[in-house]
Amino acid sequence: MVAVWLQGLESPTFNLLTGLCNFSQILKLIIRKDGVLGPRSEGGRLGVMSSALKVLKERMADVNALDSAIAMMDWDQQTYMPRGGVEARAHHLESLSKMRHEMFVADETQKALEGAAKEATGDDAALVRVIDRDMKLSTKLPVELVARKAKLAAIAHEDWVAARSKNDFAGFMPTLEQMFDIAREEAECLGYTDHIYDALTDQYEEGMTAADWKKMYESIKGPQVELVKAIANAGPVDDSRLVGDWDKNKQSEFTEMIAKAVGFDFNRGRQDTAPHPFCTGWSVGDIRLTTRYKPYIGSAIFGTLHEAGHGMYEQGSPEAWDLTALAGGVSLGMHESQSRTWENIVGRSRAFWVRFLPDLQRTFPALADLSVDQFYKMINKVQPSLIRVEADELTYNLHTLVRFEIECDVLTGALKVKDMPEAWNSKYEEYLGIRPSTDSEGCLQDVHWSQGSIGYFPTYSMGNILSYQIWNSLSKDVKNPDELIAKGEFEPILSWLQKNIYSQGKKFTPKELIQNATGEPMNAKYYLDGLGAKYRALYGL
Amino acid sequence: MVAVWLQGLESPTFNLLTGLCNFSQILKLIIRKDGVLGPRSEGGRLGVMSSALKVLKERMADVNALDSAIAMMDWDQQTYMPRGGVEARAHHLESLSKMRHEMFVADETQKALEGAAKEATGDDAALVRVIDRDMKLSTKLPVELVARKAKLAAIAHEDWVAARSKNDFAGFMPTLEQMFDIAREEAECLGYTDHIYDALTDQYEEGMTAADWKKMYESIKGPQVELVKAIANAGPVDDSRLVGDWDKNKQSEFTEMIAKAVGFDFNRGRQDTAPHPFCTGWSVGDIRLTTRYKPYIGSAIFGTLHEAGHGMYEQGSPEAWDLTALAGGVSLGMHESQSRTWENIVGRSRAFWVRFLPDLQRTFPALADLSVDQFYKMINKVQPSLIRVEADELTYNLHTLVRFEIECDVLTGALKVKDMPEAWNSKYEEYLGIRPSTDSEGCLQDVHWSQGSIGYFPTYSMGNILSYQIWNSLSKDVKNPDELIAKGEFEPILSWLQKNIYSQGKKFTPKELIQNATGEPMNAKYYLDGLGAKYRALYGL
Repeated sequence: MVAVWLQGLESPTFNLLTGLCNFSQILKLIIRKDGVLGPRSEGGRLGVMSSALKVLKERMADVNALDSAIAMMDWDQQTYMPRGGVEARAHHLESLSKMRHEMFVADETQKALEGAAKEATGDDAALVRVIDRDMKLSTKLPVELVARKAKLAAIAHEDWVAARSKNDFAGFMPTLEQMFDIAREEAECLGYTDHIYDALTDQYEEGMTAADWKKMYESIKGPQVELVKAIANAGPVDDSRLVGDWDKNKQSEFTEMIAKAVGFDFNRGRQDTAPHPFCTGWSVGDIRLTTRYKPYIGSAIFGTLHEAGHGMYEQGSPEAWDLTALAGGVSLGMHESQSRTWENIVGRSRAFWVRFLPDLQRTFPALADLSVDQFYKMINKVQPSLIRVEADELTYNLHTLVRFEIECDVLTGALKVKDMPEAWNSKYEEYLGIRPSTDSEGCLQDVHWSQGSIGYFPTYSMGNILSYQIWNSLSKDVKNPDELIAKGEFEPILSWLQKNIYSQGKKFTPKELIQNATGEPMNAKYYLDGLGAKYRALYGL
Repeated sequence: MVAVWLQGLESPTFNLLTGLCNFSQILKLIIRKDGVLGPRSEGGRLGVMSSALKVLKERMADVNALDSAIAMMDWDQQTYMPRGGVEARAHHLESLSKMRHEMFVADETQKALEGAAKEATGDDAALVRVIDRDMKLSTKLPVELVARKAKLAAIAHEDWVAARSKNDFAGFMPTLEQMFDIAREEAECLGYTDHIYDALTDQYEEGMTAADWKKMYESIKGPQVELVKAIANAGPVDDSRLVGDWDKNKQSEFTEMIAKAVGFDFNRGRQDTAPHPFCTGWSVGDIRLTTRYKPYIGSAIFGTLHEAGHGMYEQGSPEAWDLTALAGGVSLGMHESQSRTWENIVGRSRAFWVRFLPDLQRTFPALADLSVDQFYKMINKVQPSLIRVEADELTYNLHTLVRFEIECDVLTGALKVKDMPEAWNSKYEEYLGIRPSTDSEGCLQDVHWSQGSIGYFPTYSMGNILSYQIWNSLSKDVKNPDELIAKGEFEPILSWLQKNIYSQGKKFTPKELIQNATGEPMNAKYYLDGLGAKYRALYGL
């Protein structure tokens, strides 16, 4: 079925009907660069290669190609694929994922990894460390368990969709119990010292434990709850002016303009539309954002800035590490810190709109009469709500806190799954001052648990906290960043982040990178100070 | 580097940073369909499976997944990839292509193929035949030769680009001589009985030989040369009204409208823009066209209809064969016959514009005063020209004839590469009545030879000839197709092609399919009659 038909074959590229292909352009690049064929022969990319290390890099180049193929198909599915393509895409992704897994965990890779571990120095040692961590995560779970979980996840997804639409927690409960049982099994396979949660959350955020998260939440819980209550008492902000029938092409042009302005390189990336915005990539030369166009104009604007934050992090990886396991962001939490920096600290600042509100008003004259202060207040509206994905910057962490506490308690058995709705609703009342009237807008709202993604939620909050901590360090070197933002001069800001975060790739562990970049471990002080100052001023508290 | 970042993780799909993925949607489909996991377990897709056949199908499903990944990356590179992505894409395509080749020619596949050949019956026997042919083409050429050719092709591409731009045939000559040497080596590896050309052209068009092509060209050469000369004497047609600054979005809408009208299913496909239009696909549910927007309005219109012809052929494959080697078009020539049918026989008919000229004129009011007859004559303008890819329907075969004759003579040694320019120019003078004044617009114009694609050109003419032969058979069952076309009723036409051609996939050899569909072997009579009648009427000869 796969075939390329060229009108006139002016530039033959690939013809799978005949089994023949033309790699002239491809080979040209490879040959001219190295004088030899193929990435497999590219000695020295990460220093002098020893034999086990060389084998490891060769195998990992193939793993990277399969990862890239999967990411390509995934990007396509979320952006352009016609709906008739879904079934074949499922088969293809399944085959490629199996091949990827088999190639990665093969004896040859493991043997090469062992050998390389003894030989590697410098950046290569870091590379081996990263691969070794991935290998442990990929091999500690028995294939049987992975398959059982995947099968349950498939059923659980349907059950969850049905339960949410019918507000039927009882109908979902047996599946959810099974999923938490599997999570416990996973944790035992992965291993942990203190808390069962540690094994699971480490998959998402290297080195973090339940105790770490607890400490993190304890430091922010009190002040955040207090601030949110004070704001709730200050009365509502009316942001209805930001809702309208905004032209999609104009939204696209405006969001690409601001993404370009802050430093996302469109020669090495692009932006498309997707129902759920994401960022993905294949190399430092090809990082892609997606956004969406909704009646609320902030949806596209802050969606783009959020993804552009992820994108600039990825574009900032060292070229020398491109296509290797050292490239890209170091962890979910650190990545989220960068999306939050550009979305919230930069994009939701007053200074940003001093610079860009006139452009927005030229694009959408219906907003022409708004002052910077009015607009600034509207885009920073705080309103405790029941739904996490619609939450504002300030209340977001309280949503993830509820989930973290419930996950821990269910895993240890302190809370039964059947009692989850009551626990959920009470916590919402306590932390956010509102109580869900249904489980659909309560503990059934997230897809994560149906998929067994347990241990994930705190990384969102880590991103919020780190963004302010890193900004604090940046502000010591980059004087008056707000003045730069108001002038549209983002280069000094991006350069600082590039030097201290993006260029580090995965060379250090997340904890090391935080220490190196900010001089201390994760510390919520800057976040609380920053948010507090911003919102007390905004709401006149 | 590969990572997907979801804003809010509303719908987690794939996160390669953490090595975790969520196959709920994928697995759901697979599980619901078969009650078991994975395409590997889909027994019975092509009948009862015996063990060797089962293994073969399993391995071919993985080969198909890799083919699909390559096709996806290729489509992306030609449509949306930012320019910074080219180097990584080259590495990824090279890795995936090597994996694809290794998986296909692996001992396990060959052993399964041998076993399956003894067991398979019915459609399975056809499947085995198709795979066996591909296997022979893939294994007869030593890997060393393939690599040597690929390397030469990379260099030759640069040399060819430079030579064409500087009109320097002498500079390209040594490389071209090497490429023909390699072609001779290839032919010896592939094997042949009568003519060295047979081995090469069979790669592109199963079962065709130099003698077959010679017979084909001999039957059309005289009448075509004569007709072209008569038209040249009849004086030029002015089609300058069709050149303008046509809005791209409107061209896009119009071309999608006509593609949909003729029967291309946009629920199972889409159209994008590419510098060199092509059609590609991943399943019967996902077939994609590309077109381009040029000052000449026919470029997009006929480009779309051409690719839609390829696309409808692919969309018409039986669902039961989807993702297997039996799916899709049977050969280059047959495929081209379908693109030519919809582009020329349908799209360049008077009847088509009786139906669609009013729509075009509403879209582009600058054309509002043209009558159907005026427009019909403009889009069928015949003018002998030097450049193949710009050639009209009538002169196209004379361009490929020149190349066919030269390829044969150089391969046998009857013509030296150094004498190619003179031979080329003389043939153009003889067949088309015009003589190139430079080699750049002469024998340096095509990319094919630099890539070692020798034996390819006659398939274009086969497509032209077959399109009329098949149309003749169709016209016996579908009464007055022109009346249907004028009413925009394409369903009876598409249904006939679907039944007699598209639904046959690759079950029969190309020659068998031609015989089955038209009751005789390829015969240029219908082509000559059809073209003759059309153009004599148009030019009042």
